[in-house]
Amino acid sequence: MMKFMKKNILIAVIGGSECTPDIEKLAYETGKEIAKQKFILICGGLKGVMEAAAKGAYEAGGITVGILPGKTKLDANPYIQIPIATDLSHARNAIITRSADAVIAINGKYGTLSEIGLALAMNKPVYGLETWDIKGIIKVKSPKEAVLSIKKLFNFL
Amino acid sequence: MMKFMKKNILIAVIGGSECTPDIEKLAYETGKEIAKQKFILICGGLKGVMEAAAKGAYEAGGITVGILPGKTKLDANPYIQIPIATDLSHARNAIITRSADAVIAINGKYGTLSEIGLALAMNKPVYGLETWDIKGIIKVKSPKEAVLSIKKLFNFL
Amino acid sequence: MMKFMKKNILIAVIGGSECTPDIEKLAYETGKEIAKQKFILICGGLKGVMEAAAKGAYEAGGITVGILPGKTKLDANPYIQIPIATDLSHARNAIITRSADAVIAINGKYGTLSEIGLALAMNKPVYGLETWDIKGIIKVKSPKEAVLSIKKLFNFL
Amino acid sequence: MMKFMKKNILIAVIGGSECTPDIEKLAYETGKEIAKQKFILICGGLKGVMEAAAKGAYEAGGITVGILPGKTKLDANPYIQIPIATDLSHARNAIITRSADAVIAINGKYGTLSEIGLALAMNKPVYGLETWDIKGIIKVKSPKEAVLSIKKLFNFL
Repeated sequence: MMKFMKKNILIAVIGGSECTPDIEKLAYETGKEIAKQKFILICGGLKGVMEAAAKGAYEAGGITVGILPGKTKLDANPYIQIPIATDLSHARNAIITRSADAVIAINGKYGTLSEIGLALAMNKPVYGLETWDIKGIIKVKSPKEAVLSIKKLFNFL
Repeated sequence: MMKFMKKNILIAVIGGSECTPDIEKLAYETGKEIAKQKFILICGGLKGVMEAAAKGAYEAGGITVGILPGKTKLDANPYIQIPIATDLSHARNAIITRSADAVIAINGKYGTLSEIGLALAMNKPVYGLETWDIKGIIKVKSPKEAVLSIKKLFNFL
Repeated sequence: MMKFMKKNILIAVIGGSECTPDIEKLAYETGKEIAKQKFILICGGLKGVMEAAAKGAYEAGGITVGILPGKTKLDANPYIQIPIATDLSHARNAIITRSADAVIAINGKYGTLSEIGLALAMNKPVYGLETWDIKGIIKVKSPKEAVLSIKKLFNFL
Repeated sequence: MMKFMKKNILIAVIGGSECTPDIEKLAYETGKEIAKQKFILICGGLKGVMEAAAKGAYEAGGITVGILPGKTKLDANPYIQIPIATDLSHARNAIITRSADAVIAINGKYGTLSEIGLALAMNKPVYGLETWDIKGIIKVKSPKEAVLSIKKLFNFL
């Protein structure tokens, strides 16, 4: 069933639980591109950027994983197919970045900043769309550019 | 694609990373029954009971999630479709039981005992197949009985 | 100031957050003996066995560390000098056993059972006083016997 | 013994495991000031900024707690009196910031950035000495200014 996903490459989309409609659109497109490439989307499972990205991936037929901070999968947005309730609060951020093969940061506040720091400390490639200006982030101009860059990366592996 | 899994019920199979062929068979059957009911299998992602259960679920067309203790998804057994590398060592046991709607314990040593304790402390239903004799575990005679009991449980929800 | 504690040996006392006066007395004596040997007491930081053990250690001039499950040190019992608010819920159990050089289990329910499992999985010596009957636990008859056994253990190191 | 520490205020010093002698001096002074105010120092327990701060606090008679990423307290620098081996890898960063009443960031790379993000996401006051330029950090000019600002903060509580 998921055999075509055999490479099991996980792409994290990180970003705030609140965002403007423009950012939402970016996140939605990012999720869509991730699914088109048969990558698995992993995110924090909540609202805002996380929900928009999950919606994009879900509607394009992809797999969506939500690493939730709380006790219950009921916190997950409706587009999360694999809800993982960690009950670890902010420490769950480290699981999102650790599990991901690459990270796409979209906008976001301090939680997102912590995930950027964690991802870079773990030597994960981090692509940025209208997010924190941190040395080490690879700035891209569109969701497509982000996902195609990741695709290229893994073709070399 | 996973729309038929819309209920997203996660069943944890816990057990040792080493086991006899008989226990392996039990775990394999358990995974199979879980997949047949369209439940998602969640486990520790490693060898032994975890691998056999994942193999059973995978071969029956199910979804398999592995919550790994280490840094890399390369530790996952080949039947894990969603590998979550936590790098949390034994603390990842708490995520397995927290995420699960119900737990099936098969054989196992001290790691499994800790998961039984965690699951019961979290008020999760725990079904036991040839495992630790702990008050609170619902003893069942077969994988089928375990999974059908869980099915009945969630029909009431 | 803590130079005389230079060996920094941490002894975990695990047990329920509710207990009878008899168990409380046992926990109090255990804390006292731990402090007398200049060991550091580590526990879950809450009520019941944890509070009684911390009280015993505190009143005997020892150091008490509480690894709390919640967001705030205000959850700690009044005898905890070093409150560590983890916000990891049950996953904090793994930190208590991992940090400890030896574990003393007193009574307790499922949370304690999980800690016993974790400690034994981590190959920590576990001493038991009126607690779960699990193979691998070293049964002792008194707090003094538990602490002196641990002392002997570390004299050989 | 630690009665004079009754307020049990924990100050985290975060920063890299490698640093220049100048940064080391800053961290050492910071630890010293923390101890002078009878605050407890909490840090990641390793080398660099963490070691220098712990040394400063230790030599001024303070209490030093190390929240270690690995399996064993043997990883702790020699000035850590309370070594907490979490075996949680980078996820331990969230425990440092969660436990702290206030955070002082000194220099540092991506790990420190993640801790800054976590601390700000948790609404902890973060003071910065020659560190990342992130909105929300309160820039100070000296260790003394950082610690006295924190002292003032807690006098109002």
